[in-house]
Amino acid sequence: MFGVTILGNNSALPAYERHPTAQVITLADQVLLLDCGEGTQMQLSKYKVKRGKLNHIFISHLHGDHYFGLIGLITSMGLLGRELPLHLYAPAPLKEIIDLQLQVAVTKLPFELVFHPLESEGVICDQAKFTVETFATQHRIPCWGFIVREKKSPRKIDKEKAVAAAIPAAYFNSLKNGDDYVTKDGQIILNETVTKPGTPPVSYAFCADTIYDESIAVKARGVTVLYHETTYLKNLEERAATRFHSTTIQAAQIAKEAGVKELLIGHFSSKYEMLDEFLAETTEVFSNTKLALEGITFLVK
Amino acid sequence: MFGVTILGNNSALPAYERHPTAQVITLADQVLLLDCGEGTQMQLSKYKVKRGKLNHIFISHLHGDHYFGLIGLITSMGLLGRELPLHLYAPAPLKEIIDLQLQVAVTKLPFELVFHPLESEGVICDQAKFTVETFATQHRIPCWGFIVREKKSPRKIDKEKAVAAAIPAAYFNSLKNGDDYVTKDGQIILNETVTKPGTPPVSYAFCADTIYDESIAVKARGVTVLYHETTYLKNLEERAATRFHSTTIQAAQIAKEAGVKELLIGHFSSKYEMLDEFLAETTEVFSNTKLALEGITFLVK
Repeated sequence: MFGVTILGNNSALPAYERHPTAQVITLADQVLLLDCGEGTQMQLSKYKVKRGKLNHIFISHLHGDHYFGLIGLITSMGLLGRELPLHLYAPAPLKEIIDLQLQVAVTKLPFELVFHPLESEGVICDQAKFTVETFATQHRIPCWGFIVREKKSPRKIDKEKAVAAAIPAAYFNSLKNGDDYVTKDGQIILNETVTKPGTPPVSYAFCADTIYDESIAVKARGVTVLYHETTYLKNLEERAATRFHSTTIQAAQIAKEAGVKELLIGHFSSKYEMLDEFLAETTEVFSNTKLALEGITFLVK
Repeated sequence: MFGVTILGNNSALPAYERHPTAQVITLADQVLLLDCGEGTQMQLSKYKVKRGKLNHIFISHLHGDHYFGLIGLITSMGLLGRELPLHLYAPAPLKEIIDLQLQVAVTKLPFELVFHPLESEGVICDQAKFTVETFATQHRIPCWGFIVREKKSPRKIDKEKAVAAAIPAAYFNSLKNGDDYVTKDGQIILNETVTKPGTPPVSYAFCADTIYDESIAVKARGVTVLYHETTYLKNLEERAATRFHSTTIQAAQIAKEAGVKELLIGHFSSKYEMLDEFLAETTEVFSNTKLALEGITFLVK
């Protein structure tokens, strides 16, 4: 289980106190940031996200509403004395922009900024307890979605049974990994007789800006929670296509097709002050849908 | 008379809900923006500043807390369909940064962005009712202050007296300019007998980041209101010097030396949550001092 906290859910520009895109994943004592629209560092403070645990930032594409807050966040981290390396996964040209902005300010960050250019689909971040993979979406400029997957969690030891079977504590880590135990006299104690299954791993697909694209249902097949953009209501399907964005119904169709448990929708056009119709339309097709409202933490479980 | 509205007053990074530097001048049906820290476009909305009247933006220097909000503001103006040219006065490298960010987004602004690189002191913007001049300050990187000066306002016609003297209405504009009137029979009607002086022009000096520098008192001599940074309280004079910033006492000394009517102080370090000591210390030396608090409009009169 892990959390997704919405810091911004608006498209293109800030409106009605809605901020441009930014989401925080909290899992395994790490904080991941997905996109970083203008004002993200203020939103991180507002919602008391621990920056010290933020070591990986993922930027979907180089439209400003998805990254204009990044340079401010990075330089603030420097001013606050960060020393840990920071990993940034983003389209290649972002490096040039950051380097230029640091150079004109004659600023040297006190930490290493490790830049990972997004170039092809697959796993881009492999940590002890989770992976992040990226997949291409179809937008006006190169754009990438991200899937955060928990790794299979270890089996849980039934201590009473393990002790009764005289399995030494030094072997418990092997038990967690699913190994059987062989006693000195050659007897095999099957793993499942002294352990229980771990918590099933969950996953979250963050599908950034995209036109309606059925291949996303394949790429996000079976994830626990899918975030899909819904820039427009269903009556603006044509405009959505022209601008390489999606509607409520389209996001719901992808969620249905992908067989996810839950759908989060966001990236609402500034045309709309009220958001209730987004929910009404999307749930017509996919009932377990939620609005990605700012400040709310959704549990992926 | 004109207004100065504070949108941000914090140094380096946002803290305690204080934003990085940005100020708005409202005069002669124009809105001028001085510096544009991250979040300025949200602050403009919050304080209902009319963007349609914003045609001139001045950026003091290329530390992020003075310009990271600019690219977001500019691209939002484009998304909102701006057509009027926008004049930007800033250190030369900013153009390259903006061009690069527009290029990677494959964005073409629907309006002309007229870039005026800051290169030498003097008048950089000459409008019907005001001028803006720039002056160098001493900071870690090239940095510029700005002085907004109302032009001399026209004399006010005493209509009763002008009509009694049989001066034709067609000559009233000349009267406003201070000309005397000569009747058909050669009689001279002195201007001051049929007009009153116009409102005396006022001026505002925005002294961006600077170390204590007595030459600023010369450059800002006699302005009505001076904004001077006070990043630190007086006990951190040494740190202020090392970082090319100023203290309360130093700002007050400049104000006193320059003979201004009023001093505004801001650019407070994030070290400080409470600001009352800034006011207490500064008023010890220069009594007519005010804290540049966000959302407040100060009248320059």
